[in-house]
Amino acid sequence: MGRVTKLLVKSEVKMDNTSGGGQGDFTVTPWKVTGQVDYQKLIKKFGTQPIDTKLVERLFRDAGEENHAVRRGVYYSHRDLDIVLNEYEQGKKFFLYTGRGPSGPMHLGHIIQFYFTSWLQRRFNANVYIQLTDDEVFLSERSPSLETAGKWSYENALDIIAAGFDPDRTFIFRDTEYMGNVYKLALKVAKKINFSTAKAIFGFKGDSNIGFIFYPAVQVVPSLFERNRCLIPCAIDQDPFWRVQRDIAESLGFPKAAAIHSKFLPALTGITAKMSASAAETAIYLGDDEKMVRTKIMKNAFSGGQATVEEHRRLGGNTDVDVPFQWLYMFFEPSDKRVEQIRSDYSSGRMLSGEIKSILIDRVNGFLKEHRERRAKAEKDVDKFMKTGKLASRMMSTIYE
Amino acid sequence: MGRVTKLLVKSEVKMDNTSGGGQGDFTVTPWKVTGQVDYQKLIKKFGTQPIDTKLVERLFRDAGEENHAVRRGVYYSHRDLDIVLNEYEQGKKFFLYTGRGPSGPMHLGHIIQFYFTSWLQRRFNANVYIQLTDDEVFLSERSPSLETAGKWSYENALDIIAAGFDPDRTFIFRDTEYMGNVYKLALKVAKKINFSTAKAIFGFKGDSNIGFIFYPAVQVVPSLFERNRCLIPCAIDQDPFWRVQRDIAESLGFPKAAAIHSKFLPALTGITAKMSASAAETAIYLGDDEKMVRTKIMKNAFSGGQATVEEHRRLGGNTDVDVPFQWLYMFFEPSDKRVEQIRSDYSSGRMLSGEIKSILIDRVNGFLKEHRERRAKAEKDVDKFMKTGKLASRMMSTIYE
Repeated sequence: MGRVTKLLVKSEVKMDNTSGGGQGDFTVTPWKVTGQVDYQKLIKKFGTQPIDTKLVERLFRDAGEENHAVRRGVYYSHRDLDIVLNEYEQGKKFFLYTGRGPSGPMHLGHIIQFYFTSWLQRRFNANVYIQLTDDEVFLSERSPSLETAGKWSYENALDIIAAGFDPDRTFIFRDTEYMGNVYKLALKVAKKINFSTAKAIFGFKGDSNIGFIFYPAVQVVPSLFERNRCLIPCAIDQDPFWRVQRDIAESLGFPKAAAIHSKFLPALTGITAKMSASAAETAIYLGDDEKMVRTKIMKNAFSGGQATVEEHRRLGGNTDVDVPFQWLYMFFEPSDKRVEQIRSDYSSGRMLSGEIKSILIDRVNGFLKEHRERRAKAEKDVDKFMKTGKLASRMMSTIYE
Repeated sequence: MGRVTKLLVKSEVKMDNTSGGGQGDFTVTPWKVTGQVDYQKLIKKFGTQPIDTKLVERLFRDAGEENHAVRRGVYYSHRDLDIVLNEYEQGKKFFLYTGRGPSGPMHLGHIIQFYFTSWLQRRFNANVYIQLTDDEVFLSERSPSLETAGKWSYENALDIIAAGFDPDRTFIFRDTEYMGNVYKLALKVAKKINFSTAKAIFGFKGDSNIGFIFYPAVQVVPSLFERNRCLIPCAIDQDPFWRVQRDIAESLGFPKAAAIHSKFLPALTGITAKMSASAAETAIYLGDDEKMVRTKIMKNAFSGGQATVEEHRRLGGNTDVDVPFQWLYMFFEPSDKRVEQIRSDYSSGRMLSGEIKSILIDRVNGFLKEHRERRAKAEKDVDKFMKTGKLASRMMSTIYE
């Protein structure tokens, strides 16, 4: 397991090039990520724990399998993951909860969360609840209407299902369709959160609408779907919701939610930004065809290569800022041996920018081809996940008090 | 109709003994009424319209019947009642909407609103929607739990049904049971109301919980249950909700709600206070037995009589502050002839305080006896009003978009 340590350290140095330096401001809230994120500072700011080598090893041991995104520090922070594993080792179940704001088509940055969650489901045999927050995207102006959010809820559900969830252990639901089952529970949560707290955590202002101010209660609710402990895989920007959850859960008779936080998949256009659905050139959508993927990566991917071939051969590429390398490292090249070969070839100048881009293009297109094949099959399964599957049918007949 | 004018003027003078004088402060919000209410000032403050003689005559003409609470100025203010009648005269329907916060047993001050609403239903053949705000009483700490609010929802529904509603044209619903049908509509409403506005109108503060801040959207929703215009009979303290409704309804494609506002039935203990469910001595509950009613009125009813019988015979009683007289006038003595006889006898000293109290005791006990008989029969009808009646079954299968 020595390699795990080594890679973890590397990835932290490489992906956090402001860490310790304090260069520049950055903002991370559930609705806005700007500036170059200092992930180590976020741990301090949010009061979460770093995932250390020991915890990684223990997770892999309990899972019976390694996961390269964890090994490489893409999942780098947590809350109570150690307690989840303590309980699991003692034979206690936990459940997984994650979600998606259905504001439009999903891109690679969105879907990797679901692939990781389905991995956890398979390895730990856990129920998964997936919230489609059509209310939130409407209230936050990220969707022009509830009708549009409804359309994207369906489309996004297909992509989510394609990430490999178990139709009998997974419940996917739209907030506007499930509120009738959970309104009482949402009220109990909402009553515990006052405006001052919500304002401090989420940055609400006078012009925030009162639906949006209520919404944090809605996002907390699924963490209380079972009396077992909830583990939430999510990008670090969602942590404020779980801070609220942890402040109030026990007073309502539920365990505090645990979380495992990822960094953001960087934008195609440069690692200082998060991939953004609202800036099409920064993202690769799950529906982009092979040609589009090629064009986007060739044209927009920020390169750590040198200005000329001669210079590149002499000085080598900078993998710290090279987006194709970062994407391969974070998600698209699971083999440690191969990714280290690429690192070595590229940083020594043996591999050119066009070559590393070509590798990424092949990997992304290979991934998307398989994803879309599974997505095409998912249409017939939507009802299982949302209504008729074992977990879904139980949830549809449950009214939470 | 000359009598209408005369009585209206009288009641205004008599019931508003601060009007024009500006003696003392008072506060009227949906959750708090303190001080001696100056009803004419409230019209200015809230921006509503006084109900003048012409409008009263027109309402009675369209209704085909007079109503003594309107004639005597208990219903004294409105918004767009004239437009409702314009439309009605042109053959357009309107619907009625009112509600109840099920925080405990209902008293006389609560039920008279429902008797008036059922009168309107009968006279105008209108659908009625009655919202039991179990969410609101829980969020505002007026009920210790949703379970308790649920119990009182059922008990209050029996009293409401006893006020004489049509089981096929009336839908009574609990917010927590009906939210699944209206959440999308509530979101559309909530998105139109920002925190600054809600704070200014409802007085929310930093320690207000986020459920309570969302709640005004929930109370607005039933005013949008039909595309027809909504008329809301209510006590004047509820007007802030309709001000919000009127600001946003048209932008959502609905007519502005109309309202007809009542004064408060004064507390037994004195006309400067509103009857309060939280101060048992100020109220007569619908469940109080004959002996209890007698004791409460004899013991607690604020009297406008003189200190001794001799003095009373000489100076007469003051009907302006005498609660037994005010209750008879506002609700319990529908005959103008008889109420004027009582006024004359009491203010001249011919009638003693004990005598006017006895008249009120008889009337209240007579009313309560009949009310309770109807209430006992209501148990078998609850389902019709909440689920199976013509309007209720349609509403239960309607999901508002």
